[in-house]
Amino acid sequence: MSYPSVNHDVLSPVKFLVRSAMVFPDKEAVIYGDQRRTYLQFYERVNRLASALKKRGIGKGDKVAFICPNIPPMLEAHYAVPMIGAVLVSINIRLSANEVAYIVNHSEAKALFVDNEFAGLVAASLPELKKVGFVVNICDISADKPLDGPDYEAFLSEGDPDPVEIEVSDERQVATINYTSGTTGLPKGVMYHHRGAYLNAIGEQMEFGTNARSVYLWTLPMFHCNGWCFTWGITAMGATHVCLRKVVPEEIFKIVAEEGVTHLCAAPTILISMSAYATEHSIQLEKPLEIMTAGAPPAPTVIQNMEHIGANITQTYGLTEVFGPHSVCQWQSKWDSLPADERAQRKARQGVPFIIAHYMDVVDPETMEPVSRDGKTMGEVVMRGNNVMLGYYNDPEATEIAFKGDWFHSGDLAVMHPDNYIQIMDRKKDIIISGGENISTVEVENVLYKHPDIMEVAVVPVPDPKWGEVPKAFVVTRPNTRPSAEEIIAFCKEHLARFKAPKYIEFGELPKTATGKIQKFKLREKEWAGRNRMVN
Amino acid sequence: MSYPSVNHDVLSPVKFLVRSAMVFPDKEAVIYGDQRRTYLQFYERVNRLASALKKRGIGKGDKVAFICPNIPPMLEAHYAVPMIGAVLVSINIRLSANEVAYIVNHSEAKALFVDNEFAGLVAASLPELKKVGFVVNICDISADKPLDGPDYEAFLSEGDPDPVEIEVSDERQVATINYTSGTTGLPKGVMYHHRGAYLNAIGEQMEFGTNARSVYLWTLPMFHCNGWCFTWGITAMGATHVCLRKVVPEEIFKIVAEEGVTHLCAAPTILISMSAYATEHSIQLEKPLEIMTAGAPPAPTVIQNMEHIGANITQTYGLTEVFGPHSVCQWQSKWDSLPADERAQRKARQGVPFIIAHYMDVVDPETMEPVSRDGKTMGEVVMRGNNVMLGYYNDPEATEIAFKGDWFHSGDLAVMHPDNYIQIMDRKKDIIISGGENISTVEVENVLYKHPDIMEVAVVPVPDPKWGEVPKAFVVTRPNTRPSAEEIIAFCKEHLARFKAPKYIEFGELPKTATGKIQKFKLREKEWAGRNRMVN
Repeated sequence: MSYPSVNHDVLSPVKFLVRSAMVFPDKEAVIYGDQRRTYLQFYERVNRLASALKKRGIGKGDKVAFICPNIPPMLEAHYAVPMIGAVLVSINIRLSANEVAYIVNHSEAKALFVDNEFAGLVAASLPELKKVGFVVNICDISADKPLDGPDYEAFLSEGDPDPVEIEVSDERQVATINYTSGTTGLPKGVMYHHRGAYLNAIGEQMEFGTNARSVYLWTLPMFHCNGWCFTWGITAMGATHVCLRKVVPEEIFKIVAEEGVTHLCAAPTILISMSAYATEHSIQLEKPLEIMTAGAPPAPTVIQNMEHIGANITQTYGLTEVFGPHSVCQWQSKWDSLPADERAQRKARQGVPFIIAHYMDVVDPETMEPVSRDGKTMGEVVMRGNNVMLGYYNDPEATEIAFKGDWFHSGDLAVMHPDNYIQIMDRKKDIIISGGENISTVEVENVLYKHPDIMEVAVVPVPDPKWGEVPKAFVVTRPNTRPSAEEIIAFCKEHLARFKAPKYIEFGELPKTATGKIQKFKLREKEWAGRNRMVN
Repeated sequence: MSYPSVNHDVLSPVKFLVRSAMVFPDKEAVIYGDQRRTYLQFYERVNRLASALKKRGIGKGDKVAFICPNIPPMLEAHYAVPMIGAVLVSINIRLSANEVAYIVNHSEAKALFVDNEFAGLVAASLPELKKVGFVVNICDISADKPLDGPDYEAFLSEGDPDPVEIEVSDERQVATINYTSGTTGLPKGVMYHHRGAYLNAIGEQMEFGTNARSVYLWTLPMFHCNGWCFTWGITAMGATHVCLRKVVPEEIFKIVAEEGVTHLCAAPTILISMSAYATEHSIQLEKPLEIMTAGAPPAPTVIQNMEHIGANITQTYGLTEVFGPHSVCQWQSKWDSLPADERAQRKARQGVPFIIAHYMDVVDPETMEPVSRDGKTMGEVVMRGNNVMLGYYNDPEATEIAFKGDWFHSGDLAVMHPDNYIQIMDRKKDIIISGGENISTVEVENVLYKHPDIMEVAVVPVPDPKWGEVPKAFVVTRPNTRPSAEEIIAFCKEHLARFKAPKYIEFGELPKTATGKIQKFKLREKEWAGRNRMVN
């Protein structure tokens, strides 16, 4: 269907950059170490990249893969690739070489941009990446060009800084494909459309309260849901992007102070390491810092610890399939006067659909009937709206399963509170069924986080001859503490129904994904080696 | 075209209310005097109105006209009418009975809701309003029912508070028709679509920085561009609407203090009367108050006066045809350190297209070529985007003229500054051509506003045997001042090229439209009685 252009404009997040280059030509757009580029310079580099790609034959529907940390080329790709109607595939830099090869081949990527630190992820498999026509080395930490191809800056100079036409004729055209770093099975390619990216990008900025004075630090990987669409939303507001190659607390606090960072996003594990570092170094934030967290339900204690150093936490919840956040724990002014721990508990809920998301429910996954709004009955979180993926790339079967009943099925179990706020209890496959009773591992973890010696924790089911399965806690302790297993179990029994307390405690590090999610399946697999665990 | 509902949701501003009723059920949504209604109550009343309309046979495409000041029923109509696929026609309460009859007939309204204070506007012409099937009396200041029909509350009780299905299958469906209070000619019906209303509503909130804690005062008429789409945007944010029947400074300052108003919108004339009142009563605002102004270019002095009492002014610019504001004078942080008068001058520019608006230019109206970006060359402001009307209702010829070259032609003359900010110089028909030189009446007025004794002013061309036309100023003086015409003319010659100074000064009140725009055409007509004035 075609409309007159006077009153119909295809929604595309690429257009935010065109506007910001016009409105804020000489304002700082992208900061990275000593590099400082204005919005006009940012736009000109994007045009160079886009026109260079076109010269190399990349066009509508072609896939362009990037293996790159949160540095300026990664941000530039988010505009240049979709701008010419092509599709950006931003690959998780912490995957294995096998997984990366799978994704490059599955996505049929025609071009491959690789930060030279991560060249090892593709060097050996290059001959098998049949569709890749050319490779570009992104030389950031050194000038090395380990792969056969130009460096990124040389590639840009093949292009032209003049405005490149935006070739998006249908707002439901694919803009990016983000492969889920699935905890099990092969990665699936989640297709994002321009309309959803546009709406999600501005919707999140409305929730987060950014404006043209905001300074945003890139602690969240851009390869994760295109940075929850902040790659586009920050540009929409004319705010400043601060790139960050390595997400370590020391670096974060230094840049927050130096650049006057006002906003950042991070998974709860990053918050845990930040607050541990802040405690150790007696850090108090000098200016307000807004933090959006998602990726796993943060324990109330984690929220309180961060607010203690002066940050304000907004919790959101979503998945790759819904462009990142779909719900927000919308703060109610009537909660202002609650005691600190009750406030933290409210903040630990996953909340309500955000303004542009609209639709979310907790349902019985069989009947699709909404569960009772009692804060107790568990069901599956389902969503719909403009911020739901088009489907999984070249995987109609998985798409059909995910969209059963015309809702997107999250695979997350939650309760619905009487005030319409949801609270995630577990992933479907994580919940423990012990003697017929459900035990939410999140609930047990939240109690464990209250223990003064515990820094981080994961609870998983382990086999039990009597109860079928029982909870076991994997614990990371704070520096210079040495709590005993018995003491921790006793602590849980004080704060929980006794059957929910872990039977076993193991001390040590936790396995994590690139985005900081704890990989419970790895802990579980070890415990269940050689046995079958029944999962819904 | 039909899409799967899992990942495609028709954009409609009605949906903001459905979400806010779920997220903020017990939060104050609408305050009016002693009336305080929560979002759930607001939604229930909207459902009652929608279902009552359906029972009376109102459905898709039917027009429902309201003649009503800024009280809760007017706000409720903005949801209930478009919700059932019908079209809201909100009529300016300051029009003449003839104009109202013309609009009711031209829009083919099937139902008519009339605030009983304004019953006189339709009482005599009712027999001629052929399509009107029924009339409802809105009884606010009294229980009188001057027209033959139920009162509004009785009508609501015909309906049902349960959720009514939103019957919008195409986001480009007409949601409202707003008749321009055209300064000349017959009113034209500007058709707003759901998509544009949704995007414009949230786009403006992003620019204005509202959130769920904001309290918005209804100083801007809802019948003017549906209150610049704030009828929907304030609800989207879960903020609070404060209704206001009579827009007088005393009432405004009282409510701002009592209800903790954080945001309001108003034409510059309202700001002039507010600052005059504040000066007279030594009022200083206790809390920050954000004011969005548009409707006419405000003089820098007017902005400074308001900021002096503690308000922050954001200037926007637009027209009925673009859903209200299209551009915003986006503040640049680099301007923070400018002296106060220079800051006010920056703020007096009409600026850049706002985030969701994207496209605006100043062009030679003949060639459609952009004018030189020199801050001097005048051209016509043209716009396009999702916030442009579908066209004029039942007037394809006027629509074709307005959309010439696939741009919307504003009829406003402006210059483009080198930094891409536009500045309105005049309406096409207002600009003075004196001895072949253009004189911007806005420029002359801005100088006059600097005169300490002048409260309000309008400059128009008057015939002159030598120069063709010359400027004449109509002046409202401040209380207890009595400047002479000579003194004012001398003041202008000090601050302007001499040929731009008015030749004549006349003291007295200024004629205004319902939305506070000065009706220069009335002043002009008087001066040009019996003569022909050439206009481009």
